[in-house]
Amino acid sequence: SSGRPAAAGALERAMDELLHRAVPAMPAYELREKTPARAENQCADFVSFYGGLAETAERAELLGRLARGFGVDHSQVAEQSAGVLQLRQQPREPAVLLQAEDRLRYALVPRYRSLFHHISKMEGGVRFLVRLRADLLEAQALKLVEGPHVREMNGVLKNMLSEWFSSGFLNLERVTWHSPCEVLQRISEAEAVHPVKTWMDMKWRVGPYRRCYFFSHCSTPGEPLIILHVALTNEISSSIQTIIVKEYPLSETEERNKITTAIFYSLSLTQQGLQGVELGAFLIKRVVKELQKEFPQLGAFSSLSPIPGFTKWLLGLLKAKAKEHGRSGLLTDCESQEIAELTGGPALETLQPLLSSGEWAQSERLARALQAPLMRLCAWYLHGEKHRGYALNPVAHFHLQNGAVLWRINWLADVSLKGLTSACGLMVNYRYFLEDTAANSTAYLGCKSIKASEQVLSLVAQFQKNSKL
Amino acid sequence: SSGRPAAAGALERAMDELLHRAVPAMPAYELREKTPARAENQCADFVSFYGGLAETAERAELLGRLARGFGVDHSQVAEQSAGVLQLRQQPREPAVLLQAEDRLRYALVPRYRSLFHHISKMEGGVRFLVRLRADLLEAQALKLVEGPHVREMNGVLKNMLSEWFSSGFLNLERVTWHSPCEVLQRISEAEAVHPVKTWMDMKWRVGPYRRCYFFSHCSTPGEPLIILHVALTNEISSSIQTIIVKEYPLSETEERNKITTAIFYSLSLTQQGLQGVELGAFLIKRVVKELQKEFPQLGAFSSLSPIPGFTKWLLGLLKAKAKEHGRSGLLTDCESQEIAELTGGPALETLQPLLSSGEWAQSERLARALQAPLMRLCAWYLHGEKHRGYALNPVAHFHLQNGAVLWRINWLADVSLKGLTSACGLMVNYRYFLEDTAANSTAYLGCKSIKASEQVLSLVAQFQKNSKL
Amino acid sequence: SSGRPAAAGALERAMDELLHRAVPAMPAYELREKTPARAENQCADFVSFYGGLAETAERAELLGRLARGFGVDHSQVAEQSAGVLQLRQQPREPAVLLQAEDRLRYALVPRYRSLFHHISKMEGGVRFLVRLRADLLEAQALKLVEGPHVREMNGVLKNMLSEWFSSGFLNLERVTWHSPCEVLQRISEAEAVHPVKTWMDMKWRVGPYRRCYFFSHCSTPGEPLIILHVALTNEISSSIQTIIVKEYPLSETEERNKITTAIFYSLSLTQQGLQGVELGAFLIKRVVKELQKEFPQLGAFSSLSPIPGFTKWLLGLLKAKAKEHGRSGLLTDCESQEIAELTGGPALETLQPLLSSGEWAQSERLARALQAPLMRLCAWYLHGEKHRGYALNPVAHFHLQNGAVLWRINWLADVSLKGLTSACGLMVNYRYFLEDTAANSTAYLGCKSIKASEQVLSLVAQFQKNSKL
Amino acid sequence: SSGRPAAAGALERAMDELLHRAVPAMPAYELREKTPARAENQCADFVSFYGGLAETAERAELLGRLARGFGVDHSQVAEQSAGVLQLRQQPREPAVLLQAEDRLRYALVPRYRSLFHHISKMEGGVRFLVRLRADLLEAQALKLVEGPHVREMNGVLKNMLSEWFSSGFLNLERVTWHSPCEVLQRISEAEAVHPVKTWMDMKWRVGPYRRCYFFSHCSTPGEPLIILHVALTNEISSSIQTIIVKEYPLSETEERNKITTAIFYSLSLTQQGLQGVELGAFLIKRVVKELQKEFPQLGAFSSLSPIPGFTKWLLGLLKAKAKEHGRSGLLTDCESQEIAELTGGPALETLQPLLSSGEWAQSERLARALQAPLMRLCAWYLHGEKHRGYALNPVAHFHLQNGAVLWRINWLADVSLKGLTSACGLMVNYRYFLEDTAANSTAYLGCKSIKASEQVLSLVAQFQKNSKL
Repeated sequence: SSGRPAAAGALERAMDELLHRAVPAMPAYELREKTPARAENQCADFVSFYGGLAETAERAELLGRLARGFGVDHSQVAEQSAGVLQLRQQPREPAVLLQAEDRLRYALVPRYRSLFHHISKMEGGVRFLVRLRADLLEAQALKLVEGPHVREMNGVLKNMLSEWFSSGFLNLERVTWHSPCEVLQRISEAEAVHPVKTWMDMKWRVGPYRRCYFFSHCSTPGEPLIILHVALTNEISSSIQTIIVKEYPLSETEERNKITTAIFYSLSLTQQGLQGVELGAFLIKRVVKELQKEFPQLGAFSSLSPIPGFTKWLLGLLKAKAKEHGRSGLLTDCESQEIAELTGGPALETLQPLLSSGEWAQSERLARALQAPLMRLCAWYLHGEKHRGYALNPVAHFHLQNGAVLWRINWLADVSLKGLTSACGLMVNYRYFLEDTAANSTAYLGCKSIKASEQVLSLVAQFQKNSKL
Repeated sequence: SSGRPAAAGALERAMDELLHRAVPAMPAYELREKTPARAENQCADFVSFYGGLAETAERAELLGRLARGFGVDHSQVAEQSAGVLQLRQQPREPAVLLQAEDRLRYALVPRYRSLFHHISKMEGGVRFLVRLRADLLEAQALKLVEGPHVREMNGVLKNMLSEWFSSGFLNLERVTWHSPCEVLQRISEAEAVHPVKTWMDMKWRVGPYRRCYFFSHCSTPGEPLIILHVALTNEISSSIQTIIVKEYPLSETEERNKITTAIFYSLSLTQQGLQGVELGAFLIKRVVKELQKEFPQLGAFSSLSPIPGFTKWLLGLLKAKAKEHGRSGLLTDCESQEIAELTGGPALETLQPLLSSGEWAQSERLARALQAPLMRLCAWYLHGEKHRGYALNPVAHFHLQNGAVLWRINWLADVSLKGLTSACGLMVNYRYFLEDTAANSTAYLGCKSIKASEQVLSLVAQFQKNSKL
Repeated sequence: SSGRPAAAGALERAMDELLHRAVPAMPAYELREKTPARAENQCADFVSFYGGLAETAERAELLGRLARGFGVDHSQVAEQSAGVLQLRQQPREPAVLLQAEDRLRYALVPRYRSLFHHISKMEGGVRFLVRLRADLLEAQALKLVEGPHVREMNGVLKNMLSEWFSSGFLNLERVTWHSPCEVLQRISEAEAVHPVKTWMDMKWRVGPYRRCYFFSHCSTPGEPLIILHVALTNEISSSIQTIIVKEYPLSETEERNKITTAIFYSLSLTQQGLQGVELGAFLIKRVVKELQKEFPQLGAFSSLSPIPGFTKWLLGLLKAKAKEHGRSGLLTDCESQEIAELTGGPALETLQPLLSSGEWAQSERLARALQAPLMRLCAWYLHGEKHRGYALNPVAHFHLQNGAVLWRINWLADVSLKGLTSACGLMVNYRYFLEDTAANSTAYLGCKSIKASEQVLSLVAQFQKNSKL
Repeated sequence: SSGRPAAAGALERAMDELLHRAVPAMPAYELREKTPARAENQCADFVSFYGGLAETAERAELLGRLARGFGVDHSQVAEQSAGVLQLRQQPREPAVLLQAEDRLRYALVPRYRSLFHHISKMEGGVRFLVRLRADLLEAQALKLVEGPHVREMNGVLKNMLSEWFSSGFLNLERVTWHSPCEVLQRISEAEAVHPVKTWMDMKWRVGPYRRCYFFSHCSTPGEPLIILHVALTNEISSSIQTIIVKEYPLSETEERNKITTAIFYSLSLTQQGLQGVELGAFLIKRVVKELQKEFPQLGAFSSLSPIPGFTKWLLGLLKAKAKEHGRSGLLTDCESQEIAELTGGPALETLQPLLSSGEWAQSERLARALQAPLMRLCAWYLHGEKHRGYALNPVAHFHLQNGAVLWRINWLADVSLKGLTSACGLMVNYRYFLEDTAANSTAYLGCKSIKASEQVLSLVAQFQKNSKL
């Protein structure tokens, strides 16, 4: 950041000056293939200027200026549109129409796209663009930058990245204790779902009865993009503790005939810039194939997934209903009463701090009292709460999109502090019936219908019945 | 090809049926990201049906139908164009215009593009598309299929391939005698410029004082896409025989201080489907860097290139001028007379069969008599003959585009039969002055001006002076 | 060889001088572990002096001097022997006897052994010693050097090499068309049994239905020491032509269920210096294991082996018997008569040039007439002719030692010129019944008894019956 | 250990039975090369029986029985000795004598050697023998097994291992953060000199300005046998804390021009069974070469070594002198007085617990008072204390044997508890002047003379002067 100007006005001027220098003008349509390759310097200027901006807000500012100032030339688009329309009215031979359309297509390419294109050809360029998009997403999330131009640029970048990180260019790599420490350190740091504490934790997760796979791009082997942890078990696990916390050591050699089930218990994207580039679904598919090759007898595939947001959603509900007074529909009378006795106050109110802190789990009696209502509410949260018609919970949406079945909600499945505070200790299995995933996926995406098991449907019915009273 | 229908009509029906099944319909704009991934079966159907078509004409037929029947929906394009135009007249907030443009952009995507996109995600899919485009180019060359739709589809494919074979995804690999036989066999078969005769030829070309590099795609390491052969010498070579034919063996160890010059003496594309995807220029650049790292003292970089088409061009000229009678401007009076004496007839006529067969080279006197006029004519052919303002000769166009200088025309540089019949035994050096290539390239592509050496310019001047008389 | 003295006397003096410098004196027993490591220079001197001797005779001279002049100190041996004997007569505690024996053991180590030992520690040292032993064996074969000292040194070297090339340190490598050209060229040059003619021959031998394996030392991976070629067939092959000469190409993919039999059709040692170091038997064992892993259904393992020396042995016999006149016992009367008619002279005499040149095979009738007697004689040659009680034929001895069965003699099995002139076109299968090889090996080595099939035993019986008449 | 007999007598019988089965009888001299290879089963029996013995004492028992019962046949040795002696008296041709000597040599081979030989050829056999020798050494150290036969067997094993782990078969491997976790875990566990505490410690030791190398055997790449840690510095380090404990992180990239010195700060053997097989000296040599290749400017090579045993030696001395009363020669009067004042009692006595616990280092004044005497005493310990004429301290002996110079004793060089209690916080540099090491080594091993620096010699002189008074 040595070259960074002192005053804000100066910085902005420097940004504008840089962008005018670095973003190539669109050559005329006729010359689009005759234009000499961009001198690498200008792209390199952009990359190094951007790298020199230490603060998120500065980066956001630059990206905003790029999106707003170097997009599509609307008058060109209008002119070419008019040309196409005229041909529609006065038809000529197809070649003329096709060329008019191609001119229009060309006019619709935002100018910044060729900056990204040139950068992608530099050494480390694609990696740079992944980070740039991560910054852009973060800036949008932090409201540092907004508006349709930025959204458009994000879309353009996502499409470019989707092309480059297409499944044909991804390598599946398996992680073992023989993998480079570098890789294991990254895997360990990237583990967002169930954090890795020590190196022996990590050894455990790549040891017998466990598998850890990741995708790398073929141009950067050994660099994990997205990581999947699998446990090989003899049943669909109902608790993360049985997978992650065990007495050491397991026997060194796997007894293959004890392995009937594969549990996907953690999926972590290492590069936030690749959000929306379909990697996760494809990774699960490839891993299933890999596991079937290794264990032809594998009969069941299922996730054991967290339910992020459930506690928050529930607390919101409690707060709202507590104000309303009267029957909330959340708890039965009987439940309300029992809880009130245990907590020493009106259930909807006393529960709030207990659920928020996870302290309820320390009282066996309270836990017993809460099991039925929490299971029921969680089933509803997963199955009934929607965003634009699709499941509100993002993990649920992900697995349902892939064609999984909402299989089983598990009580006291993650009793770590994180598990208790984020989802009241509940976890859920999304089960993959391989022959049905395509149909399920189509039904979910097309008709927004969610396939769920008896257990879940019955819990949902209980919720509905209770809330209607 | 077991499933191939017997009668032509049946085949055509099968094609249509296949295409309707395999090419996905465009989902509505709103659903474009919610559509479930294409079932792999349908793409696989297309791939296997296409693979079963043994004859070029059949493949051309299928591709023609795909291009014509599954392109852009023109009415959609017109409708969205109208929408954009209307917003131009009644402006609203930017988001509305940007979305209208995006709808228009979406409407301009040909339907077959998503077929190609889905195929690219299959295992071996990109490789399949490369071969498909090679077929398409061949079919166009053979006039088996024509028209703007096909040209458009070719352009779409080329753009997709350009994205996938972007420089960031190419690996430079060096070939040595320790490389797999598989690779050396491919290199040997791909060598289009100076064919490899025996395996010891090949060993020679990867031995001391020689380098052989290729690009592979990072997803298919070890598979050469484009190959560059280099000789390490102490001068800019003026004859291919000094490079290719030598007494065996060279000393096993290179004396590094004897190496001052790198001669690029052969560049071969192995995949015709990648024509137009800029690989050659980039390969030369990368090899230059690689060589500079290995030999920091390297002072000169030059090609030793063939001049395909020169004999043909010259014969055409001779034929035309011979009909005209009178002074042709091709030979001086003195030259005409001397040649006539040696060949026993009017020069322009008697030369034709001798040049066509290359027999002239067997007469030392005739060769001496032809040296001046052939050198002069060749200089003109390379420097003065144009196509749309750029050099007519494709090899010249390639190197000039890269920023090389038209450096030296060499007499009796390739006395093989191929060399004599295709370019009267002449070869040419295109020299790369690394610090000037960017400027030269811009000047050539922008202003169509060719940078040439004294030798070449002087030969061109002689030609002009003579032809003007 | 720049440092090589001009006159023979000078050379010999230089040799003596070198040896006194390079061969370390034996340190006293007490200091044997306290002696500083040999300065590398002196070993390097020896290596470079030796390398400078271009002629076999000179090398032989140097090795002879080393063997004779730098062996065991006999007076030391006698002294220590006396010490041991004395303790035998006046026993003391065990430690004293054990130390006396150890001193004797130490005295029995030839001085040149430590030269070899030091060389083995240099880079490339072991490889040097392998070549040195090859030279020594060649010199012995050419009678350039003789005597017990040289034989002893050869034995010492062989033991050292056996320790270093122990099976634990050998890597089995498979050769395919993806192996380095370097390796395939070596394999091709080393193929002593059925010479490789072109590179496509070589591709054939590593292609489908063929396997080619070699052992390398773990310190020099990729360098073949001994090579085994295998054909995968559906029967025990009776002709080398069905293996080596076929129309190209075989189908690319092997149909696994057609593979029931593995035929070892060529075994070549690349380093003559490793003769006597048991590599061949061990290679066959390892390859059998490898093949069983790949093809669990493999039912039969057999060689298809040449019979070097059979023609020569037979010609010797014919010559001897021809002089004797009278009934030779080689041919029946009936056979003699038929052959005489076909060749126009006394069978034993007329056959000699025909067998020597292999021309008999061009006459179908003569071939038919010779089949029975040649088969019979060959069976006797392999089964009945002995050297110190073991099979005279070295290939037979090798396989019998490994525990194989003398399985089948094949008529017109190798009709190449080499096959006809060396073994009258006959080849033989040595079959490996895996569960019996240990017992067979013990029986052969211990009791000199040869396990043979019905076919062979019946031919032997015919021979015996005929020759007794 | 399932097959392990219940009662001790039964176990012993099982051992005898096993040994008689597994240890091959010596074949007669004439048949020594004709004996079929040992059936693998018997060796495997031994290996699995041995592996089943869980307790050290049981293993020791088995090894003792093997050494005592299956060594040399003394009567054979005597007989062959007599034969040799007789030939001495009645000379015949050389061949006869040489053969007699060879018979004697053969008789001197202990029978258990061929068991080891056969085991070495099994998969994993050499690794097994390394562990077996480690057990043997441990059993000897614990006095579980004793006597000349066991010592002899140990010597035989050591010689065999020396042949197999000869320098030509060792691979130098460098460890980085990209090495397999497996390897880094082993390195970390093997670090005997300065224990590794966390994984970030380990990352530090393979990061910038650090190097970590190991030897592996070429048959088991990736398995460290002996490990050397190096720090790249700009001076000869006088404190281990500057090497091991630093604030994180160092700059990622090394500034090459700051690197002038290589400090070997840790050398660990991972396989105790390889004790006495010269690996350490050779590893240092190879690493020096490697470093010189990477940093041609490296000017100084030195160890920074611990002085194990110094505190113990010193305490012994103090105890002895304290009893003697009177002037001890260990401290000057002045020193005695000062220390007595600080510790509140007679120096020789009060110092004992303080030195033993390392507590003295917490008092700055006491530390100052002790510096001169401890430095002097340590110099004498390293330079003057001998075992059979060589340096008593094993680390000193190792480096002096390699030709290093006893360079500098460093005050407060290792203030860890381990450093204080084992060597009063002192460390020593053994410096390698590459051009002198050969001469130094010869002088040390031959004449037992130690090359030391001015600093050390001056400290020794002070000690001598004082102790003589």
